Amino acid sequence: MKILAICGSLRAASINAALLRTARRLAPPEIEVTLCSLLGELPLFNPDLEAALPASVALLHAQVAAADALLIASPEYAHGVTGVIKNMLDWLVSFEPFVNKPVAVLNASPRAHHADAALRETLKTMSAVIVETASISVPLLGSGIAEPAMASTPAIAQPLRDALAALRNALAPSPSISGTTFPVGPP
Amino acid sequence: MKILAICGSLRAASINAALLRTARRLAPPEIEVTLCSLLGELPLFNPDLEAALPASVALLHAQVAAADALLIASPEYAHGVTGVIKNMLDWLVSFEPFVNKPVAVLNASPRAHHADAALRETLKTMSAVIVETASISVPLLGSGIAEPAMASTPAIAQPLRDALAALRNALAPSPSISGTTFPVGPP
Repeated sequence: MKILAICGSLRAASINAALLRTARRLAPPEIEVTLCSLLGELPLFNPDLEAALPASVALLHAQVAAADALLIASPEYAHGVTGVIKNMLDWLVSFEPFVNKPVAVLNASPRAHHADAALRETLKTMSAVIVETASISVPLLGSGIAEPAMASTPAIAQPLRDALAALRNALAPSPSISGTTFPVGPP
Repeated sequence: MKILAICGSLRAASINAALLRTARRLAPPEIEVTLCSLLGELPLFNPDLEAALPASVALLHAQVAAADALLIASPEYAHGVTGVIKNMLDWLVSFEPFVNKPVAVLNASPRAHHADAALRETLKTMSAVIVETASISVPLLGSGIAEPAMASTPAIAQPLRDALAALRNALAPSPSISGTTFPVGPP
């Protein structure tokens, strides 16, 4: 199972990026989490360019098409989504493989609800399938927890493991196919 | 009085850009409307770059600082603001001259309310002053009216003239200073 992890901030020290890297670290062997590094490379969306896609957009399309699910973590800027995450989504609006794509939305700042709600509204409008059981809040903002400690902090690691399991189960809903519920015990 | 007009779409045939150009055409001599051509030149917002601003961002800051008011027209993409307009605003979040800046928000597609509401929420969060009397809906989307005809179509031209007058009056609230109410008669 391939998950494409997408961070809506370009800041090097982004806690959303740290959260996604931690999810990658915690993922069981059957789940491959890849961090999308294209968001900062995309041009600003221009419908006039859609006839001959810029290379970075074509690459984004290929990565999204190849992913079984998307895992998005994006901050809130001024009570709105970041321009960075919306710009990426704008390039996916008319991209057919995005339709019915399972998406989990992580929120690292539970007090910030405007961006989370706007992001979900846009994803639904684009016909993505938001996997609610995998879309969790992780109260990271202001917690002061450094990235190396995230994977060993139960209040962060366990919800992330559960979210990954929920995403996997959403993709393979029948227990007889997907096997026992993950996790079966301590790692 | 200097108005900086800002279009949230980069499409060459954007009706929002056409609407702003029509506003420029209709503006009385004392109102100078300048179309901002920087939105497509801005890099994607990255807080790490704020210490040494990219040239296009520095230019945007200068244009915003020099403007008495902003006039924004931006489409809705997938029930959200465009990445292009939010990216520009993200670069203005910590820019002190934006605080208390009078802003009018035009909506060329009155049936689209998500982006309009989200844009206003962000502008208010950034401490702009939304001039409600100048923030109007102009039912352009789907009307089929070509740009050259907009200035001579009363249903479009008159609301635009009224919006410009409202913006001017908001900047010079005392009639004894700003003179008689515009428009005083046919142009």
